[in-house]
Amino acid sequence: MKTAAELAKEQKEISISEFFEKNKHLLGFDNPTKALMMTVKEGVDNSLDAAEEAGILPDVNVRIKNISDDKFQIVIQDNGPGIVKEQVPRVFGKLLYGSKFHRLKQNRGQQGLGISCSVLYSQLTTGSPTKVWSKIDNKNKTHYYELNINTIKNEPEILKEEDINDGLKEHGIKIEMRTIGRYRKTIEDYLKQTSIANPFAKIVYNAPDGTRITFPRSVDALPKPAREMRPHPYGVEFGVLLRMLSKTKSKNLASFLSNEFSSLGAHSSNLICKTARLDRNLKPAKLTRDEIEKLLNAMQKVKIQRPPLDCLSPIGDKELEKSLKKEYPESEFITTVQREPEVYRGFPFIIECAIVYGAKTDKMDVIRFANRVPLLYQAGACAITEAVRNVEWKRYNLPQSGNEVSAPVLLIVHMCSTWVPFISESKEAIASYPEIVKEMKLAIQDVARDVSRFLSGKRKVGEQKRRLLLFERYAHEVASSVAKLTGKNEKDIENRLKDLISKRIRISDKDEEQSEQ
Amino acid sequence: MKTAAELAKEQKEISISEFFEKNKHLLGFDNPTKALMMTVKEGVDNSLDAAEEAGILPDVNVRIKNISDDKFQIVIQDNGPGIVKEQVPRVFGKLLYGSKFHRLKQNRGQQGLGISCSVLYSQLTTGSPTKVWSKIDNKNKTHYYELNINTIKNEPEILKEEDINDGLKEHGIKIEMRTIGRYRKTIEDYLKQTSIANPFAKIVYNAPDGTRITFPRSVDALPKPAREMRPHPYGVEFGVLLRMLSKTKSKNLASFLSNEFSSLGAHSSNLICKTARLDRNLKPAKLTRDEIEKLLNAMQKVKIQRPPLDCLSPIGDKELEKSLKKEYPESEFITTVQREPEVYRGFPFIIECAIVYGAKTDKMDVIRFANRVPLLYQAGACAITEAVRNVEWKRYNLPQSGNEVSAPVLLIVHMCSTWVPFISESKEAIASYPEIVKEMKLAIQDVARDVSRFLSGKRKVGEQKRRLLLFERYAHEVASSVAKLTGKNEKDIENRLKDLISKRIRISDKDEEQSEQ
Repeated sequence: MKTAAELAKEQKEISISEFFEKNKHLLGFDNPTKALMMTVKEGVDNSLDAAEEAGILPDVNVRIKNISDDKFQIVIQDNGPGIVKEQVPRVFGKLLYGSKFHRLKQNRGQQGLGISCSVLYSQLTTGSPTKVWSKIDNKNKTHYYELNINTIKNEPEILKEEDINDGLKEHGIKIEMRTIGRYRKTIEDYLKQTSIANPFAKIVYNAPDGTRITFPRSVDALPKPAREMRPHPYGVEFGVLLRMLSKTKSKNLASFLSNEFSSLGAHSSNLICKTARLDRNLKPAKLTRDEIEKLLNAMQKVKIQRPPLDCLSPIGDKELEKSLKKEYPESEFITTVQREPEVYRGFPFIIECAIVYGAKTDKMDVIRFANRVPLLYQAGACAITEAVRNVEWKRYNLPQSGNEVSAPVLLIVHMCSTWVPFISESKEAIASYPEIVKEMKLAIQDVARDVSRFLSGKRKVGEQKRRLLLFERYAHEVASSVAKLTGKNEKDIENRLKDLISKRIRISDKDEEQSEQ
Repeated sequence: MKTAAELAKEQKEISISEFFEKNKHLLGFDNPTKALMMTVKEGVDNSLDAAEEAGILPDVNVRIKNISDDKFQIVIQDNGPGIVKEQVPRVFGKLLYGSKFHRLKQNRGQQGLGISCSVLYSQLTTGSPTKVWSKIDNKNKTHYYELNINTIKNEPEILKEEDINDGLKEHGIKIEMRTIGRYRKTIEDYLKQTSIANPFAKIVYNAPDGTRITFPRSVDALPKPAREMRPHPYGVEFGVLLRMLSKTKSKNLASFLSNEFSSLGAHSSNLICKTARLDRNLKPAKLTRDEIEKLLNAMQKVKIQRPPLDCLSPIGDKELEKSLKKEYPESEFITTVQREPEVYRGFPFIIECAIVYGAKTDKMDVIRFANRVPLLYQAGACAITEAVRNVEWKRYNLPQSGNEVSAPVLLIVHMCSTWVPFISESKEAIASYPEIVKEMKLAIQDVARDVSRFLSGKRKVGEQKRRLLLFERYAHEVASSVAKLTGKNEKDIENRLKDLISKRIRISDKDEEQSEQ
């Protein structure tokens, strides 16, 4: 039986590294298969983010080697900007550290957890430190590190640190990790899907069995870079507003509003003050709790422009189509759509969608992306799956029984946003906000309509052709009857009939082609 | 386009409070309904944990008041040991702080997140600080605090702090929070279920509409307190073993093993050294990576006793039955079972299970518990749901179609463990480890068998009775025929026949009663 004083002695801080070491399943490291997958994924996501930010067409090289039984060596190398020497230890050896959490801008990473969690997992399962080579320009030496995470402090533990001459040939990052894992072909699928969503990236993959797969670029230009945005008034909460008011450099309420928020000009800032019945000249830090509440309510009531869209970087319908044509050359028909931007809780987002018809599958497969990253697990809990289920596929000429669509169809859905609401730290599924599910459904219906048109065109043309071929079969008889009636040459009539029919068939073939484009 | 140096400037630490402020759905604060529920839950869980540790029969008082529209005031008061003055700010105002994370012992809380997340959410949504009264014994003054969390630093921000005379009358804690929420009856369900799993607790609930519900104690003794255990060799991982080796005070490998792990005596410690081909006198801190790997392998290979069980505190089959009788007086039949302890990944666990037959429901309802805490959300992702689906209910006389069991049945499943593998920080569902699902299924089958026996007894008795009643209907005709054949008085024969039948019916009713007990 313990007293309050005794209980107090047991109270202690828990470091975030300890927390995730014990809760590694929250990060997606549930089992050896997923752990290996996550390690590759975090590395590749980071490489692509860095190259894109530096304006470099990314070349990413992944190599997995099976060292013994269940132990794997993972090497990932890129041609990105590299990481400055001082930052290397913290980027890899500290959880909750990074540049992406505090910015409102589309990024693959967003939590400052990814790659350091791979480091944590590899040291937990094999005790091996992570090796990092970084070169920030082609003239510099390569910075080389061997490091672990001190889990009690959540700080990097540097085992080795040197500048070497014979390191990387070009700027970029190379990492090497050893992890307990289990190898599955999912990794290849992940890289293939990554290549689809990042048509400007070249990815080379060396599998444990020695095979080497290259996913070439399908476009040669980077997308327009995403820009950072300020928060949108519709998404702000009391506590955040309070903090912003106390920290702002703006002298009065109206200028605070137009300086610190996106989509607020002088007019709407004044309108908010008026609606809230607050003096536009109030000092931001002096607002009382009641006044903040009034302000918050007014911010939700006043009609405000939607957030700016240059913070997003969708794949693009043309680019997505090129990617898909490259990866699915066997397909009969490909259609893509990019919806207009929408907003949930102040965050702008865009849904892109595609269907590949004639893929090597009996029933519809769904490929999910969030900010250009493939989502491979927890499909059942994902907004995309919900949207797919909400569609009545039969209406689009696609046979459906229960939740299954029996057609050779690949459905691709991509959500890009400044903040994707993932259901867990492992970022495997998107939370089902109604606004998001609705947009996804509309996007899916857009491409489904195209497929439906293609399929009915195909059917119509097919029927026409069948009818003509049937007529051709009776051409001889018709010619002979006509010859008897008119007294003209039978052979002549038959030839002219056949000519006519074959012309119609050629036209019909052309229609069919057009309907496939 | 940014260089490595420019990118470096954007790198920044993310505090755990900021992380969860933005990711509040990970903590279960997805929407106003759940947020209100979570706030109550975290408070009540803490009250019960503290009282139990201090050996006090808990009295917990919950009051929810609707202040305006969507704003609620939540007050929770207990008679526990209180919290010493210096600890109050950190317990409530710092995420990842507490006594339960580092101990291997059954607790309701385990992550050091719970109540501080409620504080975070209330300040985020209403800007209101949390008020805390703490009294550590009946002579002392009450310590009073008003506090927030500084999310940038993840440290408490104390707004007011004083010792007051007219505070709490008895030792304990009282907290008061204001939160944006939505009120649903789920909160009452949660308290009812909490009362079932904690038969020694008295809970009084004052709902927003003014109703007051008391859940009385059904037993008057606390369960045997759970004790702390050392880690079990089967659950250890490389990184953890490495850290333990470097920090131990033990002089040699053999004593390290028997001192730092549970279930290892001198014999099995020596056996592990021998199996690993390592000298038992090696200095723990001097082991090489290879040697640690050998040690780890040997620890998994050698047969070791299961972990000690006094670190667990199951509800108890008798106690659970009493609880259920109190909460479901209308039930016809109640059966409970407590399985033998099992182990997953070195963590001991016990499954308890009960069925209430004749509950006010058409189809089976499942009530899930983990360490005496009701699990209210994410049933679909929970190991308990998987176990329920794995049972063939028809075999137990319970009509089943698909996943639905159409019978007036409540199924209660409780997992207690030193470490429950929750699928998220919000602790709403148990991860489906095969060992756990298997034990759950066996426990469910145990109670299902009891119900099946009860139902077939009931049916048998019912049929007998029906047959007798049928016979009674023809008693007059039989009597008249017998009178004609024998010449005796018809009325007389009929009366004697009816006497005989009614005696048999009385016996049959008694059988039925017995079969229900």
